[in-house]
Amino acid sequence: MGLVVQKYGGSSVADAEGIKRVARRIVDAKKAGHEVVVVVSAMGDTTDELIELAEQVSPLPAGREFDMLLTAGERISMALLAMAIKSLGHEAQSFTGSQAGVITDSVHNKARIIDVTPGRIRTALDEGNIAIVAGFQGVSQSSKDITTLGRGGSDTTAVALAAALRAEVCEIYTDVDGVFTADPRVVKKARKIDWIAYEDMLELASSGSKVLLDRCVEYARRYNIPIHVRSSFSGLPGTIVSNDNPHKPEGGEMEQAIISGVAHDTSEAKVTVVGVPDKPGEAARIFRAIADAEINIDMVVQNVSAASTGLTDISFTLPKTEGQRAIDALSRVREGIGYESLRYDDAIGKISLVGAGMRSNPGVTATFFEALSAAGVNIELISTSEIRISVVTRAEDVNAAVQAVHSAFGLDSETDEAVVYGGTGR
Amino acid sequence: MGLVVQKYGGSSVADAEGIKRVARRIVDAKKAGHEVVVVVSAMGDTTDELIELAEQVSPLPAGREFDMLLTAGERISMALLAMAIKSLGHEAQSFTGSQAGVITDSVHNKARIIDVTPGRIRTALDEGNIAIVAGFQGVSQSSKDITTLGRGGSDTTAVALAAALRAEVCEIYTDVDGVFTADPRVVKKARKIDWIAYEDMLELASSGSKVLLDRCVEYARRYNIPIHVRSSFSGLPGTIVSNDNPHKPEGGEMEQAIISGVAHDTSEAKVTVVGVPDKPGEAARIFRAIADAEINIDMVVQNVSAASTGLTDISFTLPKTEGQRAIDALSRVREGIGYESLRYDDAIGKISLVGAGMRSNPGVTATFFEALSAAGVNIELISTSEIRISVVTRAEDVNAAVQAVHSAFGLDSETDEAVVYGGTGR
Repeated sequence: MGLVVQKYGGSSVADAEGIKRVARRIVDAKKAGHEVVVVVSAMGDTTDELIELAEQVSPLPAGREFDMLLTAGERISMALLAMAIKSLGHEAQSFTGSQAGVITDSVHNKARIIDVTPGRIRTALDEGNIAIVAGFQGVSQSSKDITTLGRGGSDTTAVALAAALRAEVCEIYTDVDGVFTADPRVVKKARKIDWIAYEDMLELASSGSKVLLDRCVEYARRYNIPIHVRSSFSGLPGTIVSNDNPHKPEGGEMEQAIISGVAHDTSEAKVTVVGVPDKPGEAARIFRAIADAEINIDMVVQNVSAASTGLTDISFTLPKTEGQRAIDALSRVREGIGYESLRYDDAIGKISLVGAGMRSNPGVTATFFEALSAAGVNIELISTSEIRISVVTRAEDVNAAVQAVHSAFGLDSETDEAVVYGGTGR
Repeated sequence: MGLVVQKYGGSSVADAEGIKRVARRIVDAKKAGHEVVVVVSAMGDTTDELIELAEQVSPLPAGREFDMLLTAGERISMALLAMAIKSLGHEAQSFTGSQAGVITDSVHNKARIIDVTPGRIRTALDEGNIAIVAGFQGVSQSSKDITTLGRGGSDTTAVALAAALRAEVCEIYTDVDGVFTADPRVVKKARKIDWIAYEDMLELASSGSKVLLDRCVEYARRYNIPIHVRSSFSGLPGTIVSNDNPHKPEGGEMEQAIISGVAHDTSEAKVTVVGVPDKPGEAARIFRAIADAEINIDMVVQNVSAASTGLTDISFTLPKTEGQRAIDALSRVREGIGYESLRYDDAIGKISLVGAGMRSNPGVTATFFEALSAAGVNIELISTSEIRISVVTRAEDVNAAVQAVHSAFGLDSETDEAVVYGGTGR
């Protein structure tokens, strides 16, 4: 039996009962003969409460101190979890990110892991302990200051430790049964996916599926660490994310599913720069202004220029939260670029179809658009990668669009009870 | 202007408003030209809330994990305080006990400081920062685990840092105006003491005065660090604890007050071992049994043996919280010692008169006993040191006894408004 890294999110350890339930699950893995490393997030709403306190004392909390503050949350949950395990008669020790050897760059609030040196964890395991590690945090290599990894950081901590400790698997425990073919809150007949390849999961994650963040999947792919996404409440097997389908029959080839799933995202807005002179360098100046404001954009589309005017429109999508900053940045360079006007639209939604199988199935795009058309959904923007097609529509059309596409690709399960049941095949 | 260490307790930083008030006070000290190091406790009831959580997940929380948990409290308050200072336009950095170089032994929950290596604090000060340090915590020299210093630990952190950084003064901010000649809740005419010598403060602290703990005063005396106990609410000067009275006129000698103050303590109980054979070694066996149970005792009195029986009684006092364990320990050795019975009495109180001046004033004991007698207070036990006389009485007589003694030694102030006003001289 090898080493297992388990990660529990805030909703799994929201109160004392949750912590005790998680402790029992961890002890089960230990009893089954595994070495167990556990990465834990802050309890329930702790992080939000700390952020609120910070806002009360300071309008713009400083990065270094903000990280020092937020990391108190995991310190509480990890110590309580270690206590709960010890009271079940097993040895456990908790470690901060710094103690666990999670070394990061110095970018406070969204640091990146640059090395993991888990010497103390290895020693604790060798002495028979279960090791509990604070998620979401590390220590800066240069300044020795405490850092946090930003959104989804605890998943990344878990995968990074799994890689450094050569774990058999990294189990991500959450409050859903796994990764689904679509958001089960929108598509009642969504099926749980038993296995999905890293590349498909990456596309789903970056297209709005919230179960895993792309950053964590990327890390797992680089070090070839299988991720098992599963529920801390149900005990059912969840979704395996890896290179090779473990359900593949011995010596045989399983039929590759064409489509892994349908993701949607209503957190973005669309900016259109109207009447841009259609000459070399104009688009570059627009996106340099956006980049200088440190705004991440998603889809970009340039219309065909109208020959009569020599002007074109450029549209792009970005998180709604960065909309105002993008408008400000573009307004400042209006003179230089000489565009006519800006349009901002945050009533949009994005639907993405993801599947490595679409590479060899040329009919996928046609089927996708036919399904949208039959559902009466108008397409405003299109963007594709090798294994993904995304469209932007009106926000109010998103749910109908997702359901239509899910059905059109034969993803619907036989039952209506996706979340409770999980799917069995794909 | 030199370096000042300021320590703020949990009641001073109980909420966002308190943190902002404390931040302004710290900035004032910085503006006055001082280098400022601040030691801060956890906010208000945070520590109690964390202890409650621990009790919910584990009947007997383990020391190492319990310390990891509790230290989250200071992490929150120190980060918030640093943010609040920065939002006032001054540079501040917060440091955990470990980052501040507070090195301790490995006794979790009540570690002792064995070294302070404040290199990072010194660097932060040199770069113009105000340094904020988590009180109550350190890092074990041998295991590198996080430790806590036990009750009053933040005061000790402050004094230890003041010593290591060669501070001019260690200011202990609290919710009272300073050290008083008696507890102002009991004696309305109690006066604030402007200056008190280390040795008198030590006796007051170990006799029930709760403003400072003896451990912190001992540390300050060893390194000759003046302590200034004062209110974080009023801004008035408080009590200086040091070797030399700073109010002493140039070249002259101030008249030494005979009595510094009257302390009382109702947290103790009395155990009497009745009918102990009056022969060598019996007392030793009794107190070895107590010591083996790791129980700290306070006063000890042995009655004169009755010649007719060859038996004697031995009484001692100890914290009520340890009463049951003492009775258990003594019961186990009853056979071996052959005493007749045990008596346990927790309705007692202790009144202590403290003052270095009593060394050269032989009438002090007589005046003390006369005052108690006039107030109708019966004395049950007596114990003395060179600069202290303590008596045990019934608990219900304590307040009357303290008031009578306070008056008898001329300690009463002219006004009844001790807490608000403070005293002016001694």
